[in-house]
Amino acid sequence: MLDALREEVCTANRQLARSGLATLTWGNTSGIDREQGLVVIKPSGIPYEQLEAGHMVIVDLDGKVAGGELRPSTDTATHLALYRAFGQIGGVTHTHSRCATIFAQARREIPCLGTTHADHFHGPVPVARPLAEVETADYEANTGRVILERFTNVDPLAMPAVLVAGHGPFTWGRDAAESVQNAVALEAVAEMAIGTRLLDPDAPELEPYLLEKHYRRKHGPAAYYGQA
Amino acid sequence: MLDALREEVCTANRQLARSGLATLTWGNTSGIDREQGLVVIKPSGIPYEQLEAGHMVIVDLDGKVAGGELRPSTDTATHLALYRAFGQIGGVTHTHSRCATIFAQARREIPCLGTTHADHFHGPVPVARPLAEVETADYEANTGRVILERFTNVDPLAMPAVLVAGHGPFTWGRDAAESVQNAVALEAVAEMAIGTRLLDPDAPELEPYLLEKHYRRKHGPAAYYGQA
Amino acid sequence: MLDALREEVCTANRQLARSGLATLTWGNTSGIDREQGLVVIKPSGIPYEQLEAGHMVIVDLDGKVAGGELRPSTDTATHLALYRAFGQIGGVTHTHSRCATIFAQARREIPCLGTTHADHFHGPVPVARPLAEVETADYEANTGRVILERFTNVDPLAMPAVLVAGHGPFTWGRDAAESVQNAVALEAVAEMAIGTRLLDPDAPELEPYLLEKHYRRKHGPAAYYGQA
Amino acid sequence: MLDALREEVCTANRQLARSGLATLTWGNTSGIDREQGLVVIKPSGIPYEQLEAGHMVIVDLDGKVAGGELRPSTDTATHLALYRAFGQIGGVTHTHSRCATIFAQARREIPCLGTTHADHFHGPVPVARPLAEVETADYEANTGRVILERFTNVDPLAMPAVLVAGHGPFTWGRDAAESVQNAVALEAVAEMAIGTRLLDPDAPELEPYLLEKHYRRKHGPAAYYGQA
Repeated sequence: MLDALREEVCTANRQLARSGLATLTWGNTSGIDREQGLVVIKPSGIPYEQLEAGHMVIVDLDGKVAGGELRPSTDTATHLALYRAFGQIGGVTHTHSRCATIFAQARREIPCLGTTHADHFHGPVPVARPLAEVETADYEANTGRVILERFTNVDPLAMPAVLVAGHGPFTWGRDAAESVQNAVALEAVAEMAIGTRLLDPDAPELEPYLLEKHYRRKHGPAAYYGQA
Repeated sequence: MLDALREEVCTANRQLARSGLATLTWGNTSGIDREQGLVVIKPSGIPYEQLEAGHMVIVDLDGKVAGGELRPSTDTATHLALYRAFGQIGGVTHTHSRCATIFAQARREIPCLGTTHADHFHGPVPVARPLAEVETADYEANTGRVILERFTNVDPLAMPAVLVAGHGPFTWGRDAAESVQNAVALEAVAEMAIGTRLLDPDAPELEPYLLEKHYRRKHGPAAYYGQA
Repeated sequence: MLDALREEVCTANRQLARSGLATLTWGNTSGIDREQGLVVIKPSGIPYEQLEAGHMVIVDLDGKVAGGELRPSTDTATHLALYRAFGQIGGVTHTHSRCATIFAQARREIPCLGTTHADHFHGPVPVARPLAEVETADYEANTGRVILERFTNVDPLAMPAVLVAGHGPFTWGRDAAESVQNAVALEAVAEMAIGTRLLDPDAPELEPYLLEKHYRRKHGPAAYYGQA
Repeated sequence: MLDALREEVCTANRQLARSGLATLTWGNTSGIDREQGLVVIKPSGIPYEQLEAGHMVIVDLDGKVAGGELRPSTDTATHLALYRAFGQIGGVTHTHSRCATIFAQARREIPCLGTTHADHFHGPVPVARPLAEVETADYEANTGRVILERFTNVDPLAMPAVLVAGHGPFTWGRDAAESVQNAVALEAVAEMAIGTRLLDPDAPELEPYLLEKHYRRKHGPAAYYGQA
């Protein structure tokens, strides 16, 4: 069942590990089969070098395990909240990558300081508020809720990333692989934003027309980056 | 004698080297057999790539060599002090990993600024005071003593790490491998704490209920991270 | 057609990837055959590990594709502007390498703080102004124009690098391989300039006579670095 | 001639490359045969991955080439000045490693902030003054002279490193391999000193008795680090 998707999600998780974004077992990637309404996700706490496609866990959109022998990632409920709300995404990645997490810990959005950022994220990367004490009861689902609260009137395809305050980043994309690529891009722009602010606290944000130009080079009907 | 533990400790030392935490020969991991009261530890000054299980040195809890042909790590007496005082730990690791050592050199505890920290360390990582001049006589044993002095009323299982002022970190765990994982986690949270403080000197510590929630996700009877 | 140059440019692009300067697909290297007036460049959006010489795209100096089955890099028009204006260069590289891009985002030239810099760049590395809104129409060609505007009265052989404000670095050299080496050198001096400024905001620039001495050790008729 | 030393120096240069301290071809290691008064050194500008023992160049203490087909490193005269003045050293290494060079560019000595430093360097790592304009005439020999000027009344065995202002570090040791290890140690302590100063500009230097204790653990007649 869902063998191709399991393979794809397993490969994306291994790619996440190779990218250097995931220390120990801190990171997970999932993918969805929209027709069947089923999500494939990394099992909890398994080292990346041991991961096989058969380890991937299948859950439905309510979180009920529908396949696989292992427990799914503890962050599964957050992934599911994103899949339910963002109907066009096909993959989700969560990491504690260093520089994106530094912004999350500082509870600051990542300003758009250059075209690298604009190529991937259509404006500053937003921060979701920290959970209230009462929200720790259903913690992972509520992590999804504070993200969605922050994304009111934000297009998740134009802004495929969020920082959860005091926690770390979630990214998404058309499939699992793209959600990993967005995690890599997010870490790079976070690292360069930190360096830019340290070198010059008053460095200006990118001109809005350059942000628009770069974003449109890679996204939407007029995109001309990559192969046809 | 203790062949399995020697193998395990050797593997943990090699893992330490692969993790990038140990420059040159600066780092050592040990494990204990509680029934026999014997500790297995890395020999002093041997490059990690040459390490074999047979090189591991066996010492009793008083520091007497009980097996092996090489001299044990110079830090052995510190490891032994921890094993004697913390009856539930099974492995100890010492490194001079960059960011944890930076906090040790600044003689500051590592504040808990995010959930990555809370997942592993139940509060700020403490700093043991620098040794007094008179304490250099029995230096490594006294390094153990200042750590234990600092851990009065601190649960070593909930706080499996310490920074020795002006020196560097020691971590521990249920076995040698877990003590290495805690060294990796410590370095990651130290790196992100430095970055967070540089980006915003006033970044807040994590809310206590979020610290509690994350710590309990991974530790204690209600833990639900990883496989059953 | 141009098989040797395609091989050379492919090798240079793979070298760029191995150097760690190119995240995802963010970076491209080209080379020129001056006799034929043809440029060979990396195709757009292809991962470096998949690159083969046969993928390289051939364009003339007006940007017309003259060989290859893939679309050339979106930055091709910028490369061509440099080849047309700088008659002695044989290769061009564009990256978003972290520290050079940090300076580009801070819109500051990289000061010459040491001999590493002087060995490669004859003075501070200049910043080209950000494009005006009207210049986004022919964006990549205009990126070339603002670079050339900045290089009025600057010798491109003595200063084989530029930062485009809010964007990132371009470097060049006698061939594709040397343009990659200059990108590596630029990143190194940018990283050290950031660290120097953070350690001491008032660190002085290198004495002009030492800049001159080091530059002339490696360049020009009196150079004595390397093999004859 | 000197086949064993050539092999040893070649291995040390390759080790330097593997350590990550040498970008492009920026770094060189040499070793000396004191009986014959001959120095073996890396050839100038040859990439590390192509180095073979047969490429190593033999020079006498006056700089006359006595063997090998390639040109010796441009820094040879500096190495020779150190060998002539420091009769007990057997190897010299020069790099532009990032953090040591940052201190050299800031023209500041590296303070001893912790035991990692004290294990290798008996006090703050000194900075040699920048060369005067007139001294650029015999540049590399004069680089040696300003180092020796700074080492008046400094024991080169207790302080096996120096920073040349605006340039970078030189290290030495009993043989070529140890000079490389000291370059690695220097970079580590420089990196941690930068981080410590950024985290807390007022972080104290290590207590003198701890500096003494750690230095004597590894050096001198009472050393007890490593194997007998």
